[in-house]
Amino acid sequence: MTDVPRSHPRYESLMTRARVEEGVRSGLVSMQGLIAHGRGEAFDYLLGEGTIPPAAEAERAAAAHLLLARNPVLSVNGNTAVLVPDELAALQKALRCKVEVNLFHRTEERVRRLAAFLEAHGCERVLGEGAQPTIPGLDHERGRSTVEGIFSADVVLVPLEDGDRCQALRDMGKTVVVVDLNPLSRTAKSASVSVTDNVRRAVPAITREVEALRGDRAACERVAKAFDPARNLRETMDFIAARLRALG
Amino acid sequence: MTDVPRSHPRYESLMTRARVEEGVRSGLVSMQGLIAHGRGEAFDYLLGEGTIPPAAEAERAAAAHLLLARNPVLSVNGNTAVLVPDELAALQKALRCKVEVNLFHRTEERVRRLAAFLEAHGCERVLGEGAQPTIPGLDHERGRSTVEGIFSADVVLVPLEDGDRCQALRDMGKTVVVVDLNPLSRTAKSASVSVTDNVRRAVPAITREVEALRGDRAACERVAKAFDPARNLRETMDFIAARLRALG
Repeated sequence: MTDVPRSHPRYESLMTRARVEEGVRSGLVSMQGLIAHGRGEAFDYLLGEGTIPPAAEAERAAAAHLLLARNPVLSVNGNTAVLVPDELAALQKALRCKVEVNLFHRTEERVRRLAAFLEAHGCERVLGEGAQPTIPGLDHERGRSTVEGIFSADVVLVPLEDGDRCQALRDMGKTVVVVDLNPLSRTAKSASVSVTDNVRRAVPAITREVEALRGDRAACERVAKAFDPARNLRETMDFIAARLRALG
Repeated sequence: MTDVPRSHPRYESLMTRARVEEGVRSGLVSMQGLIAHGRGEAFDYLLGEGTIPPAAEAERAAAAHLLLARNPVLSVNGNTAVLVPDELAALQKALRCKVEVNLFHRTEERVRRLAAFLEAHGCERVLGEGAQPTIPGLDHERGRSTVEGIFSADVVLVPLEDGDRCQALRDMGKTVVVVDLNPLSRTAKSASVSVTDNVRRAVPAITREVEALRGDRAACERVAKAFDPARNLRETMDFIAARLRALG
């Protein structure tokens, strides 16, 4: 996989896939993570494997919410960690925020490995080990979080998250920013801001918007307030529908 | 996974996924097969996880071509084998045709395992072991076929096939029927008939159409001739686009 030439029209997609396969081999990604990656590939294909205008707007709104937060936390699962480890470190640095590993198919061993992997890529003091069941409405294993991290966060960025957890965090009164390539998913519909973009493009884009908006609290408030999640999803689906018709 | 209640709204999708995961554990399906399954899940989700009208038309055309063939062959890869082993046996029986295992990530060991698996599910005399490089335009490993099977076939059913192989078989003058949930793929575009449907629904549907059309050669010729692959794909994309707009 790693000998794909840079000139290949789908180079970025194939290299991204190789990261996830390598993640499975090294125990960072679950089998379900591979299937989820395939689902993401299909939706990204429909977007044209690029950041569409509604996604760029959502990335700006995500940055605004994260900058306005008192305690923003980046929640990271296996796929996110292997796809954007360096980019998460850069976003953490830009926000001076916490990073917490949180897994759907949780084992303490995999949490430990992912925390070590992220720290090797520059993330600082990654939380998640020893997290306790603290999120109401989720079963014991899926409802775990750390008190200083996700539990007390006011804004959480949860890329590639499951729908139940997204809803449970919303029910706790948190602002939830997701990155989900499927605009029809429950995750996308229940989020405060849903970024319909590949996490490989979305995380650096959010970081760029953080740099651009930093220090201008009025602009952040304006951007956050102007964002309408339902309208954004509708524009996203209109974009995909128009693209399908154009290609048909 | 196997304790999903039948009442779950996505029961069929989750049980189908469990088949592929089990296939990986037993060495029948590759890691790439898991990712490919995820891509299929996403496209099936866009179809509403049901057989849409253009797919039903393509299934009827597929049956007509298979009935008109002198030497029809069902080409089977790992995902197809674990998803519809009994259904392939029923289609083989209905057509009295050959079945050949053909893998993108080929090892003789996996070909042998899949042949044994299919025969345990009722397929007869499964070909594929010892296949030789015979298909022009493909590299050594991917261009393998047996002389009595795919090489000499006039009509080949290749569910979940890769685009290069589909094109190479077309270049040999064969009628190629594919089952591919992605109507934008090169496979779908290069096929004589592309069925945009889940292989779990498509194979039994083709078998039903074979039973219905059997013995009426004139009807088969009419159906095969009336089928326009480009128009069918356009109708498929229009269907998905309209569904996205309706859900948006």
